[in-house]
Amino acid sequence: MSEPAGPGPLGIICGGGNFPFVVADAVMRRGRDVVLFAIRGWADATATARYPHHWAGLGQFGRFRRLARVAQCRDVVIIGTMLRPSLAQLNPDLATLRYLPRIVRLLRGGDDHLLSGVARIFEENGFKLRGAHEVAPEILVPEGTLGCHRASARDLADMARGIALIRAMGPFDVGQAVVVADNYVLAIEAAEGTDGMLARVAALRHAGRIRLRGRIGVVVKAPKPKQDRRLDLPSVGAGTVAAAAAAGLAGIAVEAEGAITADLQELIKTADAAGLFVVGIPAGTAREPS
Amino acid sequence: MSEPAGPGPLGIICGGGNFPFVVADAVMRRGRDVVLFAIRGWADATATARYPHHWAGLGQFGRFRRLARVAQCRDVVIIGTMLRPSLAQLNPDLATLRYLPRIVRLLRGGDDHLLSGVARIFEENGFKLRGAHEVAPEILVPEGTLGCHRASARDLADMARGIALIRAMGPFDVGQAVVVADNYVLAIEAAEGTDGMLARVAALRHAGRIRLRGRIGVVVKAPKPKQDRRLDLPSVGAGTVAAAAAAGLAGIAVEAEGAITADLQELIKTADAAGLFVVGIPAGTAREPS
Repeated sequence: MSEPAGPGPLGIICGGGNFPFVVADAVMRRGRDVVLFAIRGWADATATARYPHHWAGLGQFGRFRRLARVAQCRDVVIIGTMLRPSLAQLNPDLATLRYLPRIVRLLRGGDDHLLSGVARIFEENGFKLRGAHEVAPEILVPEGTLGCHRASARDLADMARGIALIRAMGPFDVGQAVVVADNYVLAIEAAEGTDGMLARVAALRHAGRIRLRGRIGVVVKAPKPKQDRRLDLPSVGAGTVAAAAAAGLAGIAVEAEGAITADLQELIKTADAAGLFVVGIPAGTAREPS
Repeated sequence: MSEPAGPGPLGIICGGGNFPFVVADAVMRRGRDVVLFAIRGWADATATARYPHHWAGLGQFGRFRRLARVAQCRDVVIIGTMLRPSLAQLNPDLATLRYLPRIVRLLRGGDDHLLSGVARIFEENGFKLRGAHEVAPEILVPEGTLGCHRASARDLADMARGIALIRAMGPFDVGQAVVVADNYVLAIEAAEGTDGMLARVAALRHAGRIRLRGRIGVVVKAPKPKQDRRLDLPSVGAGTVAAAAAAGLAGIAVEAEGAITADLQELIKTADAAGLFVVGIPAGTAREPS
């Protein structure tokens, strides 16, 4: 999984959040140079300024291609939060314009459909798209119980049900996260994101719409079965812990090596303090619904 | 589908909302007497008072059984909104106490699991559980375009995708409703209910988290593939129209004969006025995900 010093620097196309810089640091620690291509409106400007970088709009593929070639970046990683744009917001440059008919079709569907189509455009232009977890394997959540709290037998059954549900939804290109409590599916994530889904569970419990008592239930995150793992692996962090605690859940389960975290030690510390378990479950674990 | 005057009056166990009284009226129009068993905390007291009735708590199965036998109700319908109680809220009477170990197991799972288990308890006690749509077929949403607005080819594809997703989630006892817009799954319903799901889509679009322009997308409702249709068929009404309009959707699709509405004419009138289509799609329509 580790990355030998490749030919030329690694290009990192940066969305929002901390992940782009965690990945950049990890790659640099391995002795490889990086060049950041910070997406305007998404990437953190202060952090970006600490690295060799260029800014570009989401629709400026031509600008990216020219700058990346000058910088001799052949390998490229796309990482960080970004919302799918509407076509009107894309402001395409000339090179992007050429791809507009394809982009229109890519926007008609789920996130994998969009991202894998974008990946193909990069590769047709001579770039090699790498997964962030390939160049920085330390961001992958490992297998096992990660903090000091343990999942109960009931929690383990809830996890297995959650994983199986995510798998069943796979062909529909939706849902990397669900909440299951005592065998009852409380919430399924779509466009709202994990934090939005957890806030909903918290609100429903607070309003008495979900009548469960005490710390119960698990938020389960896993990649869709057929998704391109170089793109958009599910992520967890201290924010997930806070949202899960507010929702009254007992813990967090992710597919081991199938989810990323910007700071594993902080994730564990926060979960330990909040009284939540964090488990990396081996890929392939799933209980058939009874 | 229509109901011959059966032996004795029909018992109607009434949750919240208008459905119990719509069903009672429809049954009485056919010449059969009804006795309402109004659930305390859920049934509308003013409307209940217009019919022969008794009040009972959710945990008073013994009281129901005694009163229903006195009234010679052998056929029973359960209809109207009710939230699953926590065990602590059940306040079981003596007869219910006997079933408590089973009820504990029934509460550990999805709504079908709970409802079909409750139905079995009724049947073991000599009652015949009937679907509301069996005794009052006029509440079923029929097949076809129901108002003056028509679904586009894109809308039809979104509906088929929604139906297929609901089918795929079936084994997990969750999800009678989803929102699909231009082949992209925006939301999946679990414990929040359809109105909660539609309010979320409205909020996400309003906040720019979902970047779609104009009236687009369909809310699709259908029963789970294996659910007991005597219980908990998905419902639509004027409230669904208002929530779908607020979410910027183009229309509403339900499985024909697989969803109920308290007032079809009002549903159509409201949808026509709001500019939304309403379609009853034939059962068995589903597009495999591409």
